Amino acid sequence: MDNRPIGVFDSGIGGLTVVNALAKVLPDEAIFYVGDTARVPYGNKSEKSIQQFSYEITNWLIQQDCEIIVVACNTVSSIALQELKNQFSLPIIGVIDPVVNHAIISSRNSNIGILGTQATIKSDAYQKCIMSINSKINIVSQACPLFVPLVEEGWVSGKVPLSIASVYLEKIKNTNVDTVILGCTHYPFLKNVINKVLGNKIQLVDSGESTAKIVAALLHHKKLLTDKHQGGIRCFVTDDPKSFDAFAIKFLNRKILKTNIIDLF
Amino acid sequence: MDNRPIGVFDSGIGGLTVVNALAKVLPDEAIFYVGDTARVPYGNKSEKSIQQFSYEITNWLIQQDCEIIVVACNTVSSIALQELKNQFSLPIIGVIDPVVNHAIISSRNSNIGILGTQATIKSDAYQKCIMSINSKINIVSQACPLFVPLVEEGWVSGKVPLSIASVYLEKIKNTNVDTVILGCTHYPFLKNVINKVLGNKIQLVDSGESTAKIVAALLHHKKLLTDKHQGGIRCFVTDDPKSFDAFAIKFLNRKILKTNIIDLF
Repeated sequence: MDNRPIGVFDSGIGGLTVVNALAKVLPDEAIFYVGDTARVPYGNKSEKSIQQFSYEITNWLIQQDCEIIVVACNTVSSIALQELKNQFSLPIIGVIDPVVNHAIISSRNSNIGILGTQATIKSDAYQKCIMSINSKINIVSQACPLFVPLVEEGWVSGKVPLSIASVYLEKIKNTNVDTVILGCTHYPFLKNVINKVLGNKIQLVDSGESTAKIVAALLHHKKLLTDKHQGGIRCFVTDDPKSFDAFAIKFLNRKILKTNIIDLF
Repeated sequence: MDNRPIGVFDSGIGGLTVVNALAKVLPDEAIFYVGDTARVPYGNKSEKSIQQFSYEITNWLIQQDCEIIVVACNTVSSIALQELKNQFSLPIIGVIDPVVNHAIISSRNSNIGILGTQATIKSDAYQKCIMSINSKINIVSQACPLFVPLVEEGWVSGKVPLSIASVYLEKIKNTNVDTVILGCTHYPFLKNVINKVLGNKIQLVDSGESTAKIVAALLHHKKLLTDKHQGGIRCFVTDDPKSFDAFAIKFLNRKILKTNIIDLF
């Protein structure tokens, strides 16, 4: 039994999709969420910068006495996860392994598509993870740099996202892919648009639910589940909390405790 | 006579439009350019963060012995220019005053449109500057948050930018506006698209050329022009220089000296 909070972080608001899934599966656990809103987005930044940013956040969450760290950011999970695991001794869970396992189970014809930020796609992290499990799977990947600003702008339906998605998804549409990994925590907000372009025969899998299940299993296995009813989400951001709060309340559709600004750099 | 360099900065690559104009008007001056590529974009961040970032950069440029600072960022010019002028004693020039003067001279019917980032538009800096010169001018402003990521993605022509511009420019199109200020250093890259949506009767004015003229006049007036033929652009960025360099060389179409990474935070 361990009553310490679960630490979750992302570059901005996107990781709230993972927080939402965690809060559903583990309603009694306290969750601390850091959004690095002063430096968002990470997806078009260098490996070195992303490693430094995620080191600073993980270190801060550990100082807040978190029992486990969930890296709710595909870019960080692709580029900095092993580094973080080398630097810190507590359990650190990324979003790639869980969603890759989910996608491999879901695919009927072993043709999997991956959508992600430039940094995620460039890192080949998804490809490597898939190949390490089943090297016969055919992979088609595509960077979609405009999806994050689209979601941040709140344009998740209508003509503009549809025309952007049509450009990005053209390559995948012309293959036999039957399962597509939404390899960025922002992308689930564009699920309807992506579905419209790809058609209903292609299944979309995202990191939230699959990562939450793995975290729950790990806490159970390591006997780290809380014995209190202390569930609650506390958010910390590196820029002014105002617009973050407006989004979080609307999206999470559940109470969050006061969002605080923190000084990381 | 002063042989020290001109310091220019922006959140990312956009300020190179101002550097380009400066290098044309002042070919003998050395130019130091800082792009804060680790924290780009600024346009959707808070006033406090933007003030802190621009203080750090200005301070660094002064340490490099710059004789004047050109804030080649509309967001910083809107939000932090007065703060910087209070904190430092050397001449600091923003991009708003020059382009506003240009727009007022250009407009035949005193109806001016302003396009900018969320932070720029929210700050009302352009409106205040215009009203202080001529309070009878009618102003229509519009935030265009997706224009910066579009330019950074290199999508500056074709269907997608056209559909995004059509949404943002609808309001301005339905007015008598005859002159539109491109209130962000990235926007000149989308000039053709904006022209296509607004039609050729509406004149677009941008900050590069007008700011360069003001800087040249000031250096001349204060007897700070160089007496050497030392022209050359040195770039400094806060993230990996690789993608910055590729863009800079392509866009500037002139030699730049080696880009260095600097540690600001």
